[in-house]
Amino acid sequence: MHPTPPPFLFTQPVPTLRRSGAGIEILDQTLLPFRCLVRPLSTLAEVAHAIRDMRVRGAPLIGATAACGVAVAMGTGDGSDQELEHALATLAATRPTAVNLHWALARIAHCLRPLPAPARAEAAWAVAEAIIAEDAASCAAIGARGLGVLEAIAARRKGRIRVLTHCNAGWLATCGAGTALAPVYAAHQRGLDIEVVVSETRPRNQGLLTAWELRQAGVAHTLIADNAAGLLLLRGEVNVVITGADRIAANGDSANKIGTCLKALAAQAAGVPFYIAAPCSTLDFSCASGAGIPIEDRGADELCRIQGLDEQGAVATLRLAPADTRVSNPAFDVTPAALITGILTEHGLSLPGELRRLHAEPAC
Amino acid sequence: MHPTPPPFLFTQPVPTLRRSGAGIEILDQTLLPFRCLVRPLSTLAEVAHAIRDMRVRGAPLIGATAACGVAVAMGTGDGSDQELEHALATLAATRPTAVNLHWALARIAHCLRPLPAPARAEAAWAVAEAIIAEDAASCAAIGARGLGVLEAIAARRKGRIRVLTHCNAGWLATCGAGTALAPVYAAHQRGLDIEVVVSETRPRNQGLLTAWELRQAGVAHTLIADNAAGLLLLRGEVNVVITGADRIAANGDSANKIGTCLKALAAQAAGVPFYIAAPCSTLDFSCASGAGIPIEDRGADELCRIQGLDEQGAVATLRLAPADTRVSNPAFDVTPAALITGILTEHGLSLPGELRRLHAEPAC
Repeated sequence: MHPTPPPFLFTQPVPTLRRSGAGIEILDQTLLPFRCLVRPLSTLAEVAHAIRDMRVRGAPLIGATAACGVAVAMGTGDGSDQELEHALATLAATRPTAVNLHWALARIAHCLRPLPAPARAEAAWAVAEAIIAEDAASCAAIGARGLGVLEAIAARRKGRIRVLTHCNAGWLATCGAGTALAPVYAAHQRGLDIEVVVSETRPRNQGLLTAWELRQAGVAHTLIADNAAGLLLLRGEVNVVITGADRIAANGDSANKIGTCLKALAAQAAGVPFYIAAPCSTLDFSCASGAGIPIEDRGADELCRIQGLDEQGAVATLRLAPADTRVSNPAFDVTPAALITGILTEHGLSLPGELRRLHAEPAC
Repeated sequence: MHPTPPPFLFTQPVPTLRRSGAGIEILDQTLLPFRCLVRPLSTLAEVAHAIRDMRVRGAPLIGATAACGVAVAMGTGDGSDQELEHALATLAATRPTAVNLHWALARIAHCLRPLPAPARAEAAWAVAEAIIAEDAASCAAIGARGLGVLEAIAARRKGRIRVLTHCNAGWLATCGAGTALAPVYAAHQRGLDIEVVVSETRPRNQGLLTAWELRQAGVAHTLIADNAAGLLLLRGEVNVVITGADRIAANGDSANKIGTCLKALAAQAAGVPFYIAAPCSTLDFSCASGAGIPIEDRGADELCRIQGLDEQGAVATLRLAPADTRVSNPAFDVTPAALITGILTEHGLSLPGELRRLHAEPAC
């Protein structure tokens, strides 16, 4: 349907997730950008904890890690029905909003349930490794297709293209080049003059992860407070907004990191295009609209405590507000489809109202 | 023109600013909410530094402090024309956006310039103390009038009223009860069931000041990340938004702390009323629209470093991002008049398009 874009190759500087014998190794994102620590996980409980505690984060990476969690459980246990269902239930309960988690678990369950127990471990690893490889391929396809979007913007104006993003939807959030940042990396490889405006993304400051990964890749970037996005958009200092998504409803309403819908409102007010970039595993055709997407509430400590580096360069934590401060900390919001210019998936660019045509595609 | 509202009395728990002999005492807001330190300032340079470094902050308080700075300079010097003009220029250069600063300096200059040098110190203190007293009175009037707005909302619905505010426009930002929070304190005194949703206000976290001052007053409040305002508004969890302002143009466009316009956009999308509360000294009839309001850019350290309490309860600072991170840190944005339901001043409630009728009022 779309002309085949030129290939876009990307190698993660540090793998976010990979199999290591009977377990996995993850890049622990709770220590980034301060420490780059690869952490081995060898039990189901460790994998579930890593997802819940956001040691791995980003919707596509959560899905792939959950699949690996099932494989770890099957390989370290007897592969019985009871163990399989326990692993699926344990992992499904870790985070409620990112649908990739449930997509990956449904896919691996569909494959494993008909098999005899002794065959399940090998099959689980095969599915998990396929999900990892396919996610990397999806990222590359999103990057190649998104490059076209950025090239079209570049053709209409002189000078640097400024892309505003929110949270981290780069290689750290995936098994490949990222989702929202994949077009940026493709454009950078192509030699476009591109800069990413990185919003801090309170309360967990994933913008600092984005700044860190862009620095590794040598891509120009400017850090802003989340609050600054409106002014910069309305002053014409941003040419396009691209974010990832954690769940996209059938009508195009898109759940993403809290704060995304404020940027979409400001982009609309400023007449700046707003794109969502996500693999098809983020689509949830069982949700008719955003009203059906569960929104995760997280604890007060995310707002009341903060991690950084002390003067000696050690990772330390400070308290910002008293422990008994009443906090409301929803982790996601829903951007209405009407505010979304287009949705980039591995199958190309879709209008938010046209997602149903993807229903028959693989992973959709 | 408006019916006289019942009186609203408020005493600051700690005075934000007061004369002390030939100098002043300020509550140092760079240490709040962690330390409550009253700091004496005895020279023009100290007063100018306190404004620039945001030891005093909030548009009304900045204006009153600047007037005191002139009085300090006159009282500690010879009151010559040269000293007066130096004091005015030094203080005018401290912060660009809050017009109350320039209003206060113009008012004191207008009074002092015709006087002989020896008479200037006493006159300067008289003007400065009048500005302090008038600001407290303005806050009380805004509170009394804003109470009517909150009572009208309470009459239309059952249960608790939830007021979203941004930054700190409470008693800490003024010489009285505050601007945006004055109606809240008046409602609390009247026994209304009211709760303030406090946005953190990165990068300087003035929301933590708001939470702190509401705690002192026993007013219910919930802290949120700036990013959460859109979701809470769109979910119907906020009944009204009230913020302060640093400069209001003749057409009603209002500059306030960065992030305000994102909340105004979300309030509009959610059908929630959005009010600005400010004394008339915040009106700038020389600015036809928001396009004429200068926006202050502040340093990268506000985003890259953060202050809090360590485990021993000592105030400490952590680094969040490398010192060479490129940062864009505008301190204010402009909310278009079209997004503003009404503007509360000491003269009552105005529509943004009707501000010119206030032109003949005192302090306007």
